[in-house]
Amino acid sequence: MKIGIIGAGSIGLLFASYLSKAFPVTLYTKTSEQAAIINQNGIYLQEGNAQSRFSVRALPISKWAGIEELTIIAVKQYQLHSILHQIASLEFNPQNLLFLQNGMSHLKLLKNIPAANIFVGSVEHGASKVNTYTVSHNGKGAINVALFRGAVERIKEFAEVCAAIHFPITLKDDYYRMLINKLIANAVINPLTAILQVKNGELITNTFYFAAVKKLYLEITFILNLEDPIKQFRNVLRICKKTGNNRSSMLKDLEAGRRTEIDAILGFLIEEAGIQQKTASNIESYYYIIKGKEKDRRGS
Amino acid sequence: MKIGIIGAGSIGLLFASYLSKAFPVTLYTKTSEQAAIINQNGIYLQEGNAQSRFSVRALPISKWAGIEELTIIAVKQYQLHSILHQIASLEFNPQNLLFLQNGMSHLKLLKNIPAANIFVGSVEHGASKVNTYTVSHNGKGAINVALFRGAVERIKEFAEVCAAIHFPITLKDDYYRMLINKLIANAVINPLTAILQVKNGELITNTFYFAAVKKLYLEITFILNLEDPIKQFRNVLRICKKTGNNRSSMLKDLEAGRRTEIDAILGFLIEEAGIQQKTASNIESYYYIIKGKEKDRRGS
Repeated sequence: MKIGIIGAGSIGLLFASYLSKAFPVTLYTKTSEQAAIINQNGIYLQEGNAQSRFSVRALPISKWAGIEELTIIAVKQYQLHSILHQIASLEFNPQNLLFLQNGMSHLKLLKNIPAANIFVGSVEHGASKVNTYTVSHNGKGAINVALFRGAVERIKEFAEVCAAIHFPITLKDDYYRMLINKLIANAVINPLTAILQVKNGELITNTFYFAAVKKLYLEITFILNLEDPIKQFRNVLRICKKTGNNRSSMLKDLEAGRRTEIDAILGFLIEEAGIQQKTASNIESYYYIIKGKEKDRRGS
Repeated sequence: MKIGIIGAGSIGLLFASYLSKAFPVTLYTKTSEQAAIINQNGIYLQEGNAQSRFSVRALPISKWAGIEELTIIAVKQYQLHSILHQIASLEFNPQNLLFLQNGMSHLKLLKNIPAANIFVGSVEHGASKVNTYTVSHNGKGAINVALFRGAVERIKEFAEVCAAIHFPITLKDDYYRMLINKLIANAVINPLTAILQVKNGELITNTFYFAAVKKLYLEITFILNLEDPIKQFRNVLRICKKTGNNRSSMLKDLEAGRRTEIDAILGFLIEEAGIQQKTASNIESYYYIIKGKEKDRRGS
């Protein structure tokens, strides 16, 4: 099974290095320069003190023709539009597409994609990009995948091979529930840690921050009409504790002057609130604060 | 007219130096050491590149007997309790007391004070304490004073002398309106600048921050039942622009690891919201965030 991976960020590089153990992988990069560097160097995967090198073929994204049996789309939600445009203009419809974006706002974009089978996934691995061809695997976590539209067979075969190479993928029945679980944790942890400039664990060890966490969580449950808000809240607390020493991706994005995924996370919730004519006071204000900080950092 | 000033922070030192031009001033300090240092050095007032020295008598607060005709209480709201306790235990009731605290939560504490005349004031001068006996006067602003209880004559005489020494005091008819105007500006500018870590002006130049300003302001108008919210909002914007290059006192307090005045400002609004059974989502969350940051900085 040939695999295409679009996007050479931390998740794209992580998938490319692991999957190259079992599949012929082509990694599609934003620029030709990036592709050339990866073709020359391979991909270096750092895990603790160990470093392994993987040979992966890289091509610029303009060369992607959707011919691989499975293409994994590992770009940020806000970079998705141009990919979708490219899919629509392909000569042949791609067979299997797996989308790994955070948040929920990409779902409405996937409805009209001309592909046989579409899957969505949520990645809980901790990874950070060290340079163009090097990724640091900071923490092992789950990869959950669910069918969004079409048939599930090919992804089952894919998941079986992934298990054999110790890169396990768990198939889930309900893509909405799977993504909403990740969204809830992201919507609480990411904006607050980015605003407070603290590690994930401080959200629960500082009693005042924890009070702000609870207020935000209540707004989220109200908008999402959660069936079992207490169980879900325990899941958020579990993630805060487990990743207590980590800086969230949104905090790191702001610190590095990068664009955050706030639109895919709180932006989605604000849209949902609007549809249901509910108010989302904290969510809206935190959204504005993050957007303002993005503007502040990127502008300066 | 003998003047007592309680509190040798930036405002206490500023008042002591100016008023010593026309009145015999006794400055009451928290500790005997502070008093000894001020008695030895005098008070240095820095204005731009100029520095002037003023001889002021200083005594520790335990020596205050309320015998001056006017005592100005220039401590933070959260330091007020011990002063009020001392007033209640004085041999003679003091004649004229002027309270300069920010916010509104001190008003309910003033109701039962055994003094002939009680005044409240709001200070818009910019001042920062350089060391125990030196204050930097960063920006001239208004001092507004209004009667809280009793007769107004003595403060009128006082204000006339202050005008003559170019330390103008404006008498206001309505203490509630006077303090609420200051509170509104403080409640918008202080928490947001402290959370965002920006100068006052950025609240209006960054369009996303400005959206957060407006949401917070709407909650405040709702709780305070403002008659003319648009006029009041223009006042807030005017202050943001006028003090655009300043870092707010709350931002500076957090940066220095000091306690902030959040209880007197947002704490008061949360109490008001509770009395009126109104929700104050943003106000509550910002309150928790500032309290959490206080804990974070002071603890570390």
